[in-house]
Amino acid sequence: MTDRVGFLGLGIMGRGMASNLLRAGFDLTVWNRTAARADELVAAGARRADSPAELAAACEVICCCVSDTPDVREVLLGERGVIHGAAPGTLVIDMSTISPQGAREIAAALAERGVRFLDAPVSGGSEGAAKGTLTIMVGGDADDVARATPVLQAMGKTITHVGGTGDGQTVKLVNQILVVGNMLAVAEALIFAQASGVDLEKTLHAVVGGAAGSWMLSNRGPQVIRRDWRPGFTIDLQQKDLRLVLEAAEQVGAPMIATAMISQLYRTLQSAGLGAEGNHALVKALERLAGIEVGAA
Amino acid sequence: MTDRVGFLGLGIMGRGMASNLLRAGFDLTVWNRTAARADELVAAGARRADSPAELAAACEVICCCVSDTPDVREVLLGERGVIHGAAPGTLVIDMSTISPQGAREIAAALAERGVRFLDAPVSGGSEGAAKGTLTIMVGGDADDVARATPVLQAMGKTITHVGGTGDGQTVKLVNQILVVGNMLAVAEALIFAQASGVDLEKTLHAVVGGAAGSWMLSNRGPQVIRRDWRPGFTIDLQQKDLRLVLEAAEQVGAPMIATAMISQLYRTLQSAGLGAEGNHALVKALERLAGIEVGAA
Amino acid sequence: MTDRVGFLGLGIMGRGMASNLLRAGFDLTVWNRTAARADELVAAGARRADSPAELAAACEVICCCVSDTPDVREVLLGERGVIHGAAPGTLVIDMSTISPQGAREIAAALAERGVRFLDAPVSGGSEGAAKGTLTIMVGGDADDVARATPVLQAMGKTITHVGGTGDGQTVKLVNQILVVGNMLAVAEALIFAQASGVDLEKTLHAVVGGAAGSWMLSNRGPQVIRRDWRPGFTIDLQQKDLRLVLEAAEQVGAPMIATAMISQLYRTLQSAGLGAEGNHALVKALERLAGIEVGAA
Amino acid sequence: MTDRVGFLGLGIMGRGMASNLLRAGFDLTVWNRTAARADELVAAGARRADSPAELAAACEVICCCVSDTPDVREVLLGERGVIHGAAPGTLVIDMSTISPQGAREIAAALAERGVRFLDAPVSGGSEGAAKGTLTIMVGGDADDVARATPVLQAMGKTITHVGGTGDGQTVKLVNQILVVGNMLAVAEALIFAQASGVDLEKTLHAVVGGAAGSWMLSNRGPQVIRRDWRPGFTIDLQQKDLRLVLEAAEQVGAPMIATAMISQLYRTLQSAGLGAEGNHALVKALERLAGIEVGAA
Repeated sequence: MTDRVGFLGLGIMGRGMASNLLRAGFDLTVWNRTAARADELVAAGARRADSPAELAAACEVICCCVSDTPDVREVLLGERGVIHGAAPGTLVIDMSTISPQGAREIAAALAERGVRFLDAPVSGGSEGAAKGTLTIMVGGDADDVARATPVLQAMGKTITHVGGTGDGQTVKLVNQILVVGNMLAVAEALIFAQASGVDLEKTLHAVVGGAAGSWMLSNRGPQVIRRDWRPGFTIDLQQKDLRLVLEAAEQVGAPMIATAMISQLYRTLQSAGLGAEGNHALVKALERLAGIEVGAA
Repeated sequence: MTDRVGFLGLGIMGRGMASNLLRAGFDLTVWNRTAARADELVAAGARRADSPAELAAACEVICCCVSDTPDVREVLLGERGVIHGAAPGTLVIDMSTISPQGAREIAAALAERGVRFLDAPVSGGSEGAAKGTLTIMVGGDADDVARATPVLQAMGKTITHVGGTGDGQTVKLVNQILVVGNMLAVAEALIFAQASGVDLEKTLHAVVGGAAGSWMLSNRGPQVIRRDWRPGFTIDLQQKDLRLVLEAAEQVGAPMIATAMISQLYRTLQSAGLGAEGNHALVKALERLAGIEVGAA
Repeated sequence: MTDRVGFLGLGIMGRGMASNLLRAGFDLTVWNRTAARADELVAAGARRADSPAELAAACEVICCCVSDTPDVREVLLGERGVIHGAAPGTLVIDMSTISPQGAREIAAALAERGVRFLDAPVSGGSEGAAKGTLTIMVGGDADDVARATPVLQAMGKTITHVGGTGDGQTVKLVNQILVVGNMLAVAEALIFAQASGVDLEKTLHAVVGGAAGSWMLSNRGPQVIRRDWRPGFTIDLQQKDLRLVLEAAEQVGAPMIATAMISQLYRTLQSAGLGAEGNHALVKALERLAGIEVGAA
Repeated sequence: MTDRVGFLGLGIMGRGMASNLLRAGFDLTVWNRTAARADELVAAGARRADSPAELAAACEVICCCVSDTPDVREVLLGERGVIHGAAPGTLVIDMSTISPQGAREIAAALAERGVRFLDAPVSGGSEGAAKGTLTIMVGGDADDVARATPVLQAMGKTITHVGGTGDGQTVKLVNQILVVGNMLAVAEALIFAQASGVDLEKTLHAVVGGAAGSWMLSNRGPQVIRRDWRPGFTIDLQQKDLRLVLEAAEQVGAPMIATAMISQLYRTLQSAGLGAEGNHALVKALERLAGIEVGAA
């Protein structure tokens, strides 16, 4: 644990993750586009860097958690990016969710300067980031994964080395297909239950422990019934990830009948201005169609 | 536990359930259309009845587990049915999966003779029936549920009184919507993973514990990867239940976009002669479309 | 044209068809469950029968146009049905839309008494019935079709002998799959056009004559734009026919991905009390989902 | 008809269109990236330009028909593009199918140099291009449309001025939504007919003239039955246009449930190497799912 660690991107996910690194005793340097977001971490003991390049010059291991493929490119390969400060042998761990293809291209660009790269996207939401219980799917070389493990263990509970570069992102997309598919099932089941007039809480209680069970049903089902749309993960972010899924699926030639439909349903909610609600608000698309409101008295 | 208990219908589910009643010490009488199926239970201590009516005359509580609405009608209300032998106050517990509307009609017919009725469909498959770990969703009056509870506890682990007559069946249908929806998500996710070339076992391991998790993913995902199509629950039975879902949804006016599509996908597998395979073979419908085989080297 | 012709069922379709038979000079006897509906035709020269059996005794060729399979069974095979009055050699032409399987069963029952049967469902709506421009799809033996032709020509413009008994109904169901599929395309295209802000009338004009053209686009597109929901064919009747499609498809093992989804969309309109509107109101289901109204200023 | 006219892009569409301009007596200059494709037109009397800029310097009206948004940008705004040769007042008519947004951006860039722009995408395939019977949907100012009309009339039969800049492209996308939706209906209907065992030619004949009729049914239905997959419009091009539809729909917030699904179905055919077949081969996606072949003996 002698590595000096950097963290780029202090959004709602990144702040929680960086805090956990600090708490675990790492010598931490942070950077964020909007510098003020780093204040709290700096007050708690982190150093502040003025650019990704400056941060890179001071760290052996650099974590990154920003929004989308172009953001990762900018922060790692852009004008004041990591590549301009990192010494050969530096290890970059990108924890953003981006395209598998993008991850492979970025890894190749860094490799030209001798900089190592892992794609290590996470699942678990802001709650998991804060608690250090994220699921982390890692793609890259085994040696780099071994080196990253103490850092990742400070942030996540389940860390799986799933394959080579880009495979972490692919598995994250698999994760998202499951998340929205399970959510659609919850939504359609609750519409049926509501229309049938059964007690929704008793219904959930009866089925959640058996073959019908899912994380979505256990965690988002009760929220839907209470009509609590606060996000664990927003519709806008969900749609960003579904775009990555649909683009990657196009490249590998996999048909995505259900996921493509779900993305169209989410779009109606974005058009209605609900993009900042939780992804469990998918049920509202079915409600509009059905003319039925789940959980309404 | 002084009640004499009867069990009608000794199919793959019924035999396990009746065995557990015997094991729990109930004075058990059994009946099955094909009498030979009762031999093993009789050898283990159960009495044999020649007809549902005869069984009814000898029991205070009567469980029933047959295939579909017309079968329940026949066994309970038919020529030699329970209604012709049951004394007023007898309690019938129908554990078959039938239409909520059918349950209410049968309850009404029995009530005219003073016979009590609960709908108590189960989830958990033949494995759960054998182990006594079924999920049981009960509809009917609270007094009857209280009376049935010791009997149900011998067969199931989670017993929920969800509402009035028929509501047990409604909740079972909610359960089935979730089951097939979660299975579709697993199928589409695995098609994507396969086409993308990631290691499927590592992929499952990475995502199963987080927001993407479901009973289907944990239990059927590994089976799909091994191409093990042995049924926990067959496609033919799944389709029967989806028919009940779609009919009930029509009555209550709920749109079932996903479930209707899934039922069409299962149909292609029935047409291909795969109706006896497990419901996780849904992935084969997507495989045919994709021209990709999950788990193939 | 020396045959005495009967007509059973004087609904909105039947009245137009029977009028055309009268106008063509046929010696016409009519019957309707609600006798008053026959008054106008009787005033115009038709005879009135008190039952299908009585009508059958007086006619060599009998047309039937009622609602669904059970109605046809009742009128032809029921207590006072055609079978109890018809002489051997009588020709029954069922112009209702019923299940192919039902048509074959009814034909077999009539054949036992030497009564001939054709299934000859129609397309073209009440307008086509009134004008004598129906499309008629005929299943049965060639000799019977030859005998029926003068009668059918009084009611329809395109008369096609498509195959054996029941095949007329099958082709009618093919017709309905196309009708609702084309209508879905119109609906989705107009939602897109509306959301994009283009002039809808100019849009229709630009595309209707090319590869995008359809009867639905030409005839129902302008109605949708004007928000004129008067039925050529009601949603309730459309759903009845889609039920026949989905049941027949289940029997022959054909997956109906699009048609099953469309039927679920129509259901939401029935739940909203719009079952009496025209089938082009399908666009309203997509409007509810989209939160967009086609043709709104 | 005194204008000197240029034509950029001599692919399968462009060659037919340019030939018709020549035949109509226009003084024609042509350019194509692969110069040899212009030889036949030059032999027939057209002049040859070495670059779009050179062509632009010699023409008052310039038609363009290339593949996609980036190609149009390159040819019009690129290094040796039209913008570097065109005098103020020159009229550019882009007949490619590109994004409405792209059309508006290109128009704005040309306007800065005083160059006029119309988007005028076409429908009707290579056959319509050769015969001069294209449907042309024009977006832009009325004066420019008036000026373009003689040129457009040499290439098309139905020319509709649908609105402002970009609206021609929007209407073309409406056209494509209808085309693939109608094709899906044809495909599902033929799968049902095949599974039901009716004669497919008689079926088509019976329904094509009524409410089920469409250009797709009349023109592609018989091809499907003969299993003739020669393209009027290839799957690859269809997918390119569906991508434009789905992107534009995302921008305007319109859900595209059917079109998104159809695009996924086409993807399976591209993955199977069938991208060069006609768009009516959509039926093959349903065939794979159904395990049924339409038109097979």
